Amino acid sequence: MSVNREWILTQRPQGPCKTSDFEYRESEFIRPSMEKGHILVHNSVFLCAPTLRNWMDAPSNSLYPSIDLGAPVLATTAGRVLESADERFTVGSRVTMIGHWQEYDVVNSAAWPVRAVPDGQNLIEAMGPMGMNALTAYFGVTEIGRPLTGETMLVSGAAGSTGSVASQIGRILGCRVVGVAGGPEKCTWLVNELGLDAAIDYRAGNLVEQIRATCPDGVDVFYDNVGGEILQAAVESINKFGRIVLCGQIAGYNDGRPVPGPSNMMRLVYGSVRMQGFLLGDYENELPRARTDIAMWIADGRLKHREDIRTGFENIPAVFGELFKGSNNGTLMIVTNNDAYKTV
Amino acid sequence: MSVNREWILTQRPQGPCKTSDFEYRESEFIRPSMEKGHILVHNSVFLCAPTLRNWMDAPSNSLYPSIDLGAPVLATTAGRVLESADERFTVGSRVTMIGHWQEYDVVNSAAWPVRAVPDGQNLIEAMGPMGMNALTAYFGVTEIGRPLTGETMLVSGAAGSTGSVASQIGRILGCRVVGVAGGPEKCTWLVNELGLDAAIDYRAGNLVEQIRATCPDGVDVFYDNVGGEILQAAVESINKFGRIVLCGQIAGYNDGRPVPGPSNMMRLVYGSVRMQGFLLGDYENELPRARTDIAMWIADGRLKHREDIRTGFENIPAVFGELFKGSNNGTLMIVTNNDAYKTV
Repeated sequence: MSVNREWILTQRPQGPCKTSDFEYRESEFIRPSMEKGHILVHNSVFLCAPTLRNWMDAPSNSLYPSIDLGAPVLATTAGRVLESADERFTVGSRVTMIGHWQEYDVVNSAAWPVRAVPDGQNLIEAMGPMGMNALTAYFGVTEIGRPLTGETMLVSGAAGSTGSVASQIGRILGCRVVGVAGGPEKCTWLVNELGLDAAIDYRAGNLVEQIRATCPDGVDVFYDNVGGEILQAAVESINKFGRIVLCGQIAGYNDGRPVPGPSNMMRLVYGSVRMQGFLLGDYENELPRARTDIAMWIADGRLKHREDIRTGFENIPAVFGELFKGSNNGTLMIVTNNDAYKTV
Repeated sequence: MSVNREWILTQRPQGPCKTSDFEYRESEFIRPSMEKGHILVHNSVFLCAPTLRNWMDAPSNSLYPSIDLGAPVLATTAGRVLESADERFTVGSRVTMIGHWQEYDVVNSAAWPVRAVPDGQNLIEAMGPMGMNALTAYFGVTEIGRPLTGETMLVSGAAGSTGSVASQIGRILGCRVVGVAGGPEKCTWLVNELGLDAAIDYRAGNLVEQIRATCPDGVDVFYDNVGGEILQAAVESINKFGRIVLCGQIAGYNDGRPVPGPSNMMRLVYGSVRMQGFLLGDYENELPRARTDIAMWIADGRLKHREDIRTGFENIPAVFGELFKGSNNGTLMIVTNNDAYKTV
């Protein structure tokens, strides 16, 4: 443990981030004196969550963190606790957290959510089917979208990590679910494998028409991971008392300006539409319920999950960039050592 | 009652509506055979509600009605029932309703909300302090904005009919309330007469800065009657778990295109912000509670209301146009006969 590997943000990405926006660094790792609430974690899984791209931007007024130039990249990671100054996390236990693109990582558990991984679960499961994207989908659907049996739920980014779980939870709750994804292969997967009622290939264009055709009774809940054109098109079909779940706005993350909202605000007024953002952290106290439900749905085969696992610490920036090309299939993560597969 | 007077929509307004978009018509009034659910009303008060401007546009996808060319203008009116085929409204009783710019007006009470005016209240009160704008403000604040004691509430169009009531209800509920209005006179009125904590003159520019200066703890609830630039500026100060009440978007009504929403969607996501439209009609069953509260607040002096009363049926379109210049002071209405002042 004398060498630490890390990826440093060296310039603000212009548009999609490139490997050259980061610098790979190896340095001698000196165990720090642990301040109260800090833990030292040996990371072995790095989850590619789209919102990390936002954090790479200069400080803005958008309520999310901005990584300092010259600092390791703030990121969603999982690993094993090597030292702890937080009684909730014992040495040898495993956690998921907001850490960094670093092999050995010191985080302040008071500033960022750190969550214990229970015995019996490996870190890939803890970052995949039981991970932050799945949990985010759970609360987005059940707390923000609140679909009723028989309603129509439209999901953007439906083949993605969060969207695929949101879509299936919609089906489990008795909705007609239509997914929007990029390309015929993903659309086929949504319908044939996940059991969605229909899928829309946004690359085929005519989003407004495609939504009308697949949602003949309009859209009651729109679960939005993407924003931009898709959000605009969904607003045109949103029903009276419709709900728009603002989970992410990936279409705008590379634009370098505040992500624009939909027009047709009067449809929101006259439709008594609720458009609402949220973060998983808002529901920290309710995680046990979510985990119980998700585990049950996985066990009885109603919730399927796929991971797209890559390897190699040196590949992190390049793999992360694939998210924005949509070339991943499932929850994209990088595994950097075999501790990721252990269940205790 | 043999002659009826009416204003007919003869062309779609381009930008602000002009009197030449309408045609004044007198015609012999023949009592219709009343279909079930229809009532014949002699109108004596015409409320100038901004949203009527939307209804003058060609049919769109915005969930509001579109007046046919050649038809009398759909409008908020009050009058006395002359004939009734609806047992809820007896002949001789008085109502407020969505009627038309017509002296004698047949409406279908199944299609549009018709509300009885209780004895003891004149029609100006029924259209003013106890009217649809005040009731709209009541539900917008209490059901959508749901401000907590000590929170900061920002109100756009604060000197207007709905905004002035919303602002005062915010104060009654224990909020710090800041109003946005046009011109120093209205701002002075908001602070000195209505007791708001501060007022912002949007004509002085620098909205983002002005909001920051007057709302140093940020904005918890934004009650929006205006939209556009003001909505955008409010988003920049909206707090975590903030609520944006979409009551109206008057800034966009004359534009002839779908009203654009705010950008900085990521602030809505990370801020867990709820932005929600509504209509008074959503709360039809809860009107008694609203009326009781409003009457109490008026009686104990905590809720002040002013009306800007004009006269003359022939002046309706010209007076209506003043709404968009902001030259009215208080709830703008046209009184066309003295029945408006009777309390039974």
